[in-house]
Amino acid sequence: MALIVQKFGGTSMGSADRIRNAALRAIAAHAAGDRVVVIVSAMSGETDRLLRLARDIRAVAAEGRETELTVAAIAAAGRELDALAATGEQVSAALMALAIQELGGRARSFVGHQLKMLTDSAFTKARIKTIEGTRVLEAVMAGDIAVVAGFQGVDDKGDITTLGRGGSDTSAVAVAAALGADVCEIFTDVDGVYTTDPNICPSARKIDKISYEEMLELASLGAKVLQIRSVELAMKYQVPIHVRTSFSNAEGTLVTNEASLEEVVVTGVAYDKNEARVMFVGVEDRPGIVAQIFGDLASENVSVDMIIQNASKLSDNDTLRTDVTFTVAKSDLQKVRAVIDGIAKNVGAVEVRYDEDIVKVSIVGLGMRSHAGVAAKMFRILADHAVNIQAISTSEIKVSCLVAAKYTELVVRALHDGFGLAGPAADPAPEAAAADAANR
Amino acid sequence: MALIVQKFGGTSMGSADRIRNAALRAIAAHAAGDRVVVIVSAMSGETDRLLRLARDIRAVAAEGRETELTVAAIAAAGRELDALAATGEQVSAALMALAIQELGGRARSFVGHQLKMLTDSAFTKARIKTIEGTRVLEAVMAGDIAVVAGFQGVDDKGDITTLGRGGSDTSAVAVAAALGADVCEIFTDVDGVYTTDPNICPSARKIDKISYEEMLELASLGAKVLQIRSVELAMKYQVPIHVRTSFSNAEGTLVTNEASLEEVVVTGVAYDKNEARVMFVGVEDRPGIVAQIFGDLASENVSVDMIIQNASKLSDNDTLRTDVTFTVAKSDLQKVRAVIDGIAKNVGAVEVRYDEDIVKVSIVGLGMRSHAGVAAKMFRILADHAVNIQAISTSEIKVSCLVAAKYTELVVRALHDGFGLAGPAADPAPEAAAADAANR
Repeated sequence: MALIVQKFGGTSMGSADRIRNAALRAIAAHAAGDRVVVIVSAMSGETDRLLRLARDIRAVAAEGRETELTVAAIAAAGRELDALAATGEQVSAALMALAIQELGGRARSFVGHQLKMLTDSAFTKARIKTIEGTRVLEAVMAGDIAVVAGFQGVDDKGDITTLGRGGSDTSAVAVAAALGADVCEIFTDVDGVYTTDPNICPSARKIDKISYEEMLELASLGAKVLQIRSVELAMKYQVPIHVRTSFSNAEGTLVTNEASLEEVVVTGVAYDKNEARVMFVGVEDRPGIVAQIFGDLASENVSVDMIIQNASKLSDNDTLRTDVTFTVAKSDLQKVRAVIDGIAKNVGAVEVRYDEDIVKVSIVGLGMRSHAGVAAKMFRILADHAVNIQAISTSEIKVSCLVAAKYTELVVRALHDGFGLAGPAADPAPEAAAADAANR
Repeated sequence: MALIVQKFGGTSMGSADRIRNAALRAIAAHAAGDRVVVIVSAMSGETDRLLRLARDIRAVAAEGRETELTVAAIAAAGRELDALAATGEQVSAALMALAIQELGGRARSFVGHQLKMLTDSAFTKARIKTIEGTRVLEAVMAGDIAVVAGFQGVDDKGDITTLGRGGSDTSAVAVAAALGADVCEIFTDVDGVYTTDPNICPSARKIDKISYEEMLELASLGAKVLQIRSVELAMKYQVPIHVRTSFSNAEGTLVTNEASLEEVVVTGVAYDKNEARVMFVGVEDRPGIVAQIFGDLASENVSVDMIIQNASKLSDNDTLRTDVTFTVAKSDLQKVRAVIDGIAKNVGAVEVRYDEDIVKVSIVGLGMRSHAGVAAKMFRILADHAVNIQAISTSEIKVSCLVAAKYTELVVRALHDGFGLAGPAADPAPEAAAADAANR
């Protein structure tokens, strides 16, 4: 008899019919002899609706406000926003329990304070500290299906907290870890993790098994099937995650510690169009310049992804100058533009150039650790298609290249084919192992 | 420095503008030096929306159900309906706290488990057992405005319970009692309790002060300004209630223990069109017959209001027969019709007559205790207008008459004028004191 955690996201909770389907799935697992804990997100659109209510009321009330909000006031508002947003999952949990009951099953719902999921007090982005879970365990041991409201916890004062957007995945993995569940099933609207985006590469293949590390790189690179935090947590507590569709009984993708049996070098190709490139041209090349640039950006809360500094050269007036390039999220570009002139002046930059028409394409795979030449092969594939690489960044199990956005489809398909990811369970590309030692 | 409880109902929470107005009122009381606890209902329509979600999902799910629901299953559903419905007030409380904060005040919201309002486990109609309220008191002593979600509590297992429809009034009075508040202000969409319905009697006058007992009789007779349970609770714990409008600063009606200074005999005229009359004609007059009729109705969960049994007389076949008349809520009439033939047969009734075109008109006043002849005066006023009385029922401080519905306006106005309730602070009607001793 296994203990399984099933997590249903907002789209799986989007209508009475869908909630019924999710309920039937929990009942089927229970009927098969498993103990079942269900974690639910808010119905799709509900969290937005609640936060819109808050925004409207604050806008109306703000007309009567005479003073600026203090830091303490902003923290106080966070507490209320969490109490507000947490109702979305509470509603889902009650509805799911009702659906299971109506279908002949036994179910009880639990919210954060009943689950006793203790978090810190960082409202709207709380971190889980401990999960007691006694009542939930009692319920499943008594033969009930426990339905837990995701996304929420309580701090040590009993205040309601939320884990931030997408926190229900994290709730699910945390509950699975705390209860010692055998698997955490994440039901979603795709049927698993793919070798790349099937929308632009028809030969993309569902991955049967993937390691936590690979999943982390794919998730952070834009394959948004799972929240990064939930994968980190699963890795830490060794909770197997099964990503699967809520629309059929098909097996999805198992995210575990074990390396893939297929021993492929590259597991997937990811791309991210949400970054913009910023380039300081002709920066004075003296110690502390780069620290100043990124220190200034950090103090504006701008997260920088890739950073490239080219070799310096003497300028016309005999000072040593270099170009510094970096990428930021397009959504942060506004903040960057607001401070960029000051920074440029501080570091003596001749010019600032922006480019939003770029894409970051990455290959990810545990096999890179043991196979040399993977990066070199990637660069060769791009060169064969006459695609210019604007920047490169690597990690142990990932190589990312920045290229013009217009090449997105071309490059993703070429890499997917080039690394033998297409079709049924492809062999590892033999050239990869034989290639030169340029793989960093 | 007084401690005041302010309760805002669904219409006062109906829009961002209205929430802002309510927030301003709490801030004004706080600025005047009072400690303030605010109790909120769900935004108007929200509870219905939530229960509709539940109904939809249960209807969809029920298609797959093979067995009838057991009693345990119905109780389990009640638990989930309460967790669902309680979110309405949680949303309101968070929004109100946000509005107060945005207006420059300090506020914190609290739900049932944070208030520690302990109830029994009678889901959807729980009764309050105790209120700890430590955190709420701490908040107000620290200078915050505490915003409490009404309508909800937790049972001793930590399960979320609700007090039933209109439970926020009861929450407010209970919190006021537990915290030893000086007054419980109930903000509503009328500006107080009136001597009768101003819609049908333009000379109706706002009552400045009314006793708990009178308020109870007026409330149960259809003047639905306050929930009956909340008035009972206020009387038990001697909490003064101030019923007032949320749309102006006008003083409303104070409900307290003290008798009105005005020493009027009749405080108000109420009417209730929601009753129907049922008459068993020619029932055998032998012991146990009436017990059988009302026992059978009680087992169908039908509440009976007035009961009148006329004197018996010999029928054609020499058996002693009588007529038994009673009134029930029109909403229960369906249930009555379903069982009435069986009952009629059991008690040998010749015929059953229904009448839905009736109204119950009542006069209420503490002064009746000490003034004789009030009932007689009421009957005389009806007679003067040639209105036939179909049934009479009395209590210590109330006389009710059943008359044809078409006379509603006529009778209410005549009684209102006849007992001197019109105009500014009228004197008690001198005839009332002089009238005969027919007042039962």
